[in-house]
Amino acid sequence: MKKINVAVNGYGVIGKRVAEAVALQKDMELVGIGDVAADWRIKTAAQKYAVFANTEEGHRAMVNQKIEVAGDLNDLLDAADVVVDCAPKKFGAQNAEKYRQAGVKFIVQGGEKHETTGHSFSAENNYTLAIGRDATRVVSCNTTSIVRTLSALKRAGLLNKARGTLLRRATDPWESHKNGIMNTLVPEPEIPSHQGPDAQSVDPNLDVVTAAVKVPQTLSHLHYWTVQLTKEASKDEVLEAFGSSTRTAFINMSDDLSANNAVKELMLDLGRPHGDMYEVAIWKDMLKVEGDELYYAYLVDNQAIVIPETIDAIRALTGIESDPAKSIKKTNRSLGIRQRFI
Amino acid sequence: MKKINVAVNGYGVIGKRVAEAVALQKDMELVGIGDVAADWRIKTAAQKYAVFANTEEGHRAMVNQKIEVAGDLNDLLDAADVVVDCAPKKFGAQNAEKYRQAGVKFIVQGGEKHETTGHSFSAENNYTLAIGRDATRVVSCNTTSIVRTLSALKRAGLLNKARGTLLRRATDPWESHKNGIMNTLVPEPEIPSHQGPDAQSVDPNLDVVTAAVKVPQTLSHLHYWTVQLTKEASKDEVLEAFGSSTRTAFINMSDDLSANNAVKELMLDLGRPHGDMYEVAIWKDMLKVEGDELYYAYLVDNQAIVIPETIDAIRALTGIESDPAKSIKKTNRSLGIRQRFI
Repeated sequence: MKKINVAVNGYGVIGKRVAEAVALQKDMELVGIGDVAADWRIKTAAQKYAVFANTEEGHRAMVNQKIEVAGDLNDLLDAADVVVDCAPKKFGAQNAEKYRQAGVKFIVQGGEKHETTGHSFSAENNYTLAIGRDATRVVSCNTTSIVRTLSALKRAGLLNKARGTLLRRATDPWESHKNGIMNTLVPEPEIPSHQGPDAQSVDPNLDVVTAAVKVPQTLSHLHYWTVQLTKEASKDEVLEAFGSSTRTAFINMSDDLSANNAVKELMLDLGRPHGDMYEVAIWKDMLKVEGDELYYAYLVDNQAIVIPETIDAIRALTGIESDPAKSIKKTNRSLGIRQRFI
Repeated sequence: MKKINVAVNGYGVIGKRVAEAVALQKDMELVGIGDVAADWRIKTAAQKYAVFANTEEGHRAMVNQKIEVAGDLNDLLDAADVVVDCAPKKFGAQNAEKYRQAGVKFIVQGGEKHETTGHSFSAENNYTLAIGRDATRVVSCNTTSIVRTLSALKRAGLLNKARGTLLRRATDPWESHKNGIMNTLVPEPEIPSHQGPDAQSVDPNLDVVTAAVKVPQTLSHLHYWTVQLTKEASKDEVLEAFGSSTRTAFINMSDDLSANNAVKELMLDLGRPHGDMYEVAIWKDMLKVEGDELYYAYLVDNQAIVIPETIDAIRALTGIESDPAKSIKKTNRSLGIRQRFI
């Protein structure tokens, strides 16, 4: 079987995880990573991967830091069938032009606009629509969780409308000495916040409104949802609906998984790389159905949840797997994704 | 005019504020405060108020610390027409028996059960029902904010049902070295959380469901609400409804009041004692009405919001003012409560 050659451009919190995940796929080959920095992160990358310098300045910095440089961005793109752009927000749109000129298929992350690719991706929702396209956009962590959970309710014929409050982690842990917030709560200035409309870029028929607030912790996002169901339903019906997503796992307060630090520790104890949680973790015993109203809360690991989606997006764009369920299964197995943690 | 003699039993974050507020009322006399501790807090109290020792052990500790002791709990109750119990959660129920035996009217705080007094108080909602009673319970900070805001929508005929997500401050600032949480989010194990049912102890007809989560900051609570209105309404109609509560103030993101630390600093700049905010502060420019749905967020100063309610409860229990509006006006003026901060 011919393997797909994958380049990762931008080696930050998402890029490094995509690189690791690509390296685990039997049908993919990681040809290298591109970046412009020359700090500890890139030195670590150079121990494992071929490193390409995206700019001349970056090249000089890498040489100064004794990092072996495999080539420039053109060399990286020459070697790739598809490039996954994980550059900081907004750079993806600039890079997209270069990818198009080089004739390489590409994936951007959720920080970019839908218009950059014209398609927004969520594996369990619209994999087939991405097959054979030149480019797609894997929606953001929060949006991925929204589409994943609400699509599950929709498939079961239960979803009327959903209203959510999102507690967003302040910043990523590795840079919390730079961008952290202390002892405060920072609401997004507008309701609805952008995640609701963003979910509609994947599924325009979702009736979803979100409000969001930044909180002073770094471990994960936490969502609270109120859903108007299409009819009165039992808790079991709802649990079964969520269970139809293979990337949704249930956790329980009664297991003392009563805060996001405990869940993070569980992921580390399970031996997950970086303690990553790819699944949406829904509190099963907290979840409540009253008549035709449903209430629940879940955790989103903002650094990890989009990784399996990105792997599936690679298969969809390149067409090496036309069956969404098969791609999802391969990805889930390679990353150890499961619906029960304990 | 005969002044009402008021005792404050328990000199913590609520007790000290009640004492200060009572001292500001022309129709009340603070006869003293009771406590069992002998630390810096009580030493400060002794500079301003007569201090009574609730236990023999407390008495000895105070004498050891050279705090002048005015008497025991019986002496304090003898001097009082009404006692405001601000002892830690659950002690109020024990103390209630002593107050009854002493034949003194009393007020407990929201940490106690409704059953302890048989009446739960919120000034703008049910002042008149408390007139002449022996005892009432001022509902908690979160519940006060819920009853205050939802009653305003109800008076305007706009409220159908309300669903809220509450971000609770981790602990009170003065003891955040003891009970703080760091870099985590701690959801209440059950939905609904207790605040929704508690609001119904004041107004059984409110259709309200809450979920709550503790967040690692100490400045205030933050609520996000989704309200199903009885009909399509304009933003102006909703603002007018909220404006009918004299203890609800609007703030704006556009004034850079974009996080709760900024609002706290504003209160300090306004010269409020302890930087207290007695009002529910609703973000006006964030508030959104879409058809018959209303979305908004507001801040609750958990240490301050119940203080004016407690002052009004004193007037209601003792019957020195039978008109709720007049009591509320007196209280508001004495504390500088206003509907616009800037």
